[in-house]
Amino acid sequence: MGLVVQKYGGSSVADAEGIKRVAKRIVDAKKNGNQVVVVVSAMGDTTDELIDLAGQVSPIPAGREFDMLLTAGERISMALLAMAIKNLGHEAQSFTGSQAGVITDSVHNKARIIDVTPGRIRTSIDEGNVAIVAGFQGVSQEGKNITTLGRGGSDTTAVALAAALDAEVCEIYTDVDGVFTADPRVVKKARKIDWISFEDMLELASSGSKVLLHRCVEYARRYNIPIHVRSSFSGLQGTWVSNEPIEKNQQGEKGVEQAIISGVAHDTSEAKITVVGVPDKPGEAAKIFRAVADAQINLDMIVQNVSAASTGLTDISFTLPKTEGRKAIDALEKQKASVGFDSLRYDDQIAKISLVGAGMKTNPGVTAGFFEALTDAGVNIELISTSEIRISVVTRADDVNEAVRAVHSAFGLDSDSDEAVVYGGTGR
Amino acid sequence: MGLVVQKYGGSSVADAEGIKRVAKRIVDAKKNGNQVVVVVSAMGDTTDELIDLAGQVSPIPAGREFDMLLTAGERISMALLAMAIKNLGHEAQSFTGSQAGVITDSVHNKARIIDVTPGRIRTSIDEGNVAIVAGFQGVSQEGKNITTLGRGGSDTTAVALAAALDAEVCEIYTDVDGVFTADPRVVKKARKIDWISFEDMLELASSGSKVLLHRCVEYARRYNIPIHVRSSFSGLQGTWVSNEPIEKNQQGEKGVEQAIISGVAHDTSEAKITVVGVPDKPGEAAKIFRAVADAQINLDMIVQNVSAASTGLTDISFTLPKTEGRKAIDALEKQKASVGFDSLRYDDQIAKISLVGAGMKTNPGVTAGFFEALTDAGVNIELISTSEIRISVVTRADDVNEAVRAVHSAFGLDSDSDEAVVYGGTGR
Repeated sequence: MGLVVQKYGGSSVADAEGIKRVAKRIVDAKKNGNQVVVVVSAMGDTTDELIDLAGQVSPIPAGREFDMLLTAGERISMALLAMAIKNLGHEAQSFTGSQAGVITDSVHNKARIIDVTPGRIRTSIDEGNVAIVAGFQGVSQEGKNITTLGRGGSDTTAVALAAALDAEVCEIYTDVDGVFTADPRVVKKARKIDWISFEDMLELASSGSKVLLHRCVEYARRYNIPIHVRSSFSGLQGTWVSNEPIEKNQQGEKGVEQAIISGVAHDTSEAKITVVGVPDKPGEAAKIFRAVADAQINLDMIVQNVSAASTGLTDISFTLPKTEGRKAIDALEKQKASVGFDSLRYDDQIAKISLVGAGMKTNPGVTAGFFEALTDAGVNIELISTSEIRISVVTRADDVNEAVRAVHSAFGLDSDSDEAVVYGGTGR
Repeated sequence: MGLVVQKYGGSSVADAEGIKRVAKRIVDAKKNGNQVVVVVSAMGDTTDELIDLAGQVSPIPAGREFDMLLTAGERISMALLAMAIKNLGHEAQSFTGSQAGVITDSVHNKARIIDVTPGRIRTSIDEGNVAIVAGFQGVSQEGKNITTLGRGGSDTTAVALAAALDAEVCEIYTDVDGVFTADPRVVKKARKIDWISFEDMLELASSGSKVLLHRCVEYARRYNIPIHVRSSFSGLQGTWVSNEPIEKNQQGEKGVEQAIISGVAHDTSEAKITVVGVPDKPGEAAKIFRAVADAQINLDMIVQNVSAASTGLTDISFTLPKTEGRKAIDALEKQKASVGFDSLRYDDQIAKISLVGAGMKTNPGVTAGFFEALTDAGVNIELISTSEIRISVVTRADDVNEAVRAVHSAFGLDSDSDEAVVYGGTGR
């Protein structure tokens, strides 16, 4: 008998029918001899409706009260889900984040989990109940105020509970069949990934893949909790995310060996700022990035080219969320005199395309193949950035779909082609 | 500087506009130099919508989960109200029943408050905040589960908090101007009562007046907390409920002296059961009422007449909520042989009309005046029951409006007549 943590997102429990369908799936897991802990998000659009209500009474709702408001959503879904399970003849109890022992820091609206003390949950499941836990919420260590975990918080709740309870697996139920080799809306031939390592998943998540958030995968890696991302609508196996392919995912040999390339991710939510004419001397870049950091802005790619020998000036480019663009420009303009650059260029018509796969470490030619695919598709590359297991480029936003399809196809990821192609070449 | 507890019902906070209006009123009370604790109900129809959702997933929702579900309603309204107050430039914090220290027994859906430990509320108001507390909810002493207090629970929360915080007054804001001498929908000339004693209010509440529930008034009387029932829409003085008329209610001499009659209440929610042909010997009535009590049914009026000498048989009648009718009949039918009565009559086309006023203790003729008024209106009396400060009769349901108007008028309660009429007569 194992312990399984299941997480259901808002689209899976959007209405009474959805709740009943999810309840049946939970009962099936219980009947299979598992202890089951369920983390649930708010129903469908509930959270958006609550945010809208808040906007009607206050233009800038206070953090503490905003969290108090939003957590009502999970309270509703979890209570209904517990009722639906009991209606199927099984015992269930629902718990708020606070009752479940999800302890966070005091940063309202985007709190971080600092401890999980799941004593009540353990007691509840040991008594034979399915324990339903509100996702996305916790209680602050100081002040005992209700907090929310920010975007993707329910996934993090699920992984954190799985770690605290030493669960065998954390199943993340969603409205897609798993993690794909590219966004299926862009690449029709995208393939569901059967297994992917934590490392590759982390790179995909930070490169624009929306299925799992970086924070949740990071948590799972740290505590070595296998994640199984799957659809709450189908009964199919989804994508396993873990250190190593494990027996439980019941795959053939093919899946057990890691593919060279896990997938292609793209991201159109970023903008590019270029600081033009920066004197190429020690400390200049530091001043620029200090100014941006002081404005509490997280940067993504940062690229500096060698300076032109004739002028002694260089350009520094970086990407950042479009939503932070205004703030970054303002912060930099203030430093213009002290840094001594010429001008700023702001460009929000860009896309980032990333190729991810631990296999590229040992397979020369991946980088070359990547650039060749983009060239053949007529896509111009504006910035390049790499990690050990990822190559990212910035292109025009208009080119993104074509670029993703070209790369996906070139690396043999299309569902009707062979599994993987090893590229010869000169290495990257 | 005083401490005021204000309670706002669902109709006062039905939408964003209502919440902003209430916020303004709260800020006004704060500006007047008061410490303010606010108890708030769920917005408008929220609770009904949640009950409807529960019905969609489970025909008989479990008590614990049902309470968890319903308490989401107050969580939403209290957070929004706190935001709206902060938006007016004042500090506010919202607290769940559990955070506010509302400790209850473990009877889900109709828990009773057994203690209030308002440490966090006291700290919050001492720091200059308005403290907003979720009405209707608490946390069970055993098991630390979320509970709800049942019908009228938010009023009880407010009074209990007022008692625990030693507040000067508990203001109950509602959608009417106060307590009236009769239901204004029935009696157009009904008058708002400026002051009424706890005792008279208790009798009115148990005789069908809906403005305050018996339970809340009982709590206020026990801890001697003056209640001020008033409209959240107008700025008018409402009705003060207290031991003695107090200076604060700013009334003229007229209001300070207790009227003979406080008001006329009516109730059409009851049915009448008559047990026909009961042998008039010791123990028979006991068997009947034991049978009903074992079925967990609360009775209201109970009337037994002297037996007819010729037969040695008597009839016993009682009234009870219509909703309990079926259960009572079933319980009694089972005891028919052992009690030895002839038959049962069930009648749900009845109304109860009650005249309430401590003054009737010392004013003879009230009873006679009451019956004369009904006679003049052509209303037949089926049962009579009295307490020291109340007379109640049961009539046909069809006669109720006419009966209430006739009695209201006869006792000088109509708003355009003299204040009170002392009846001569032979006493009651």
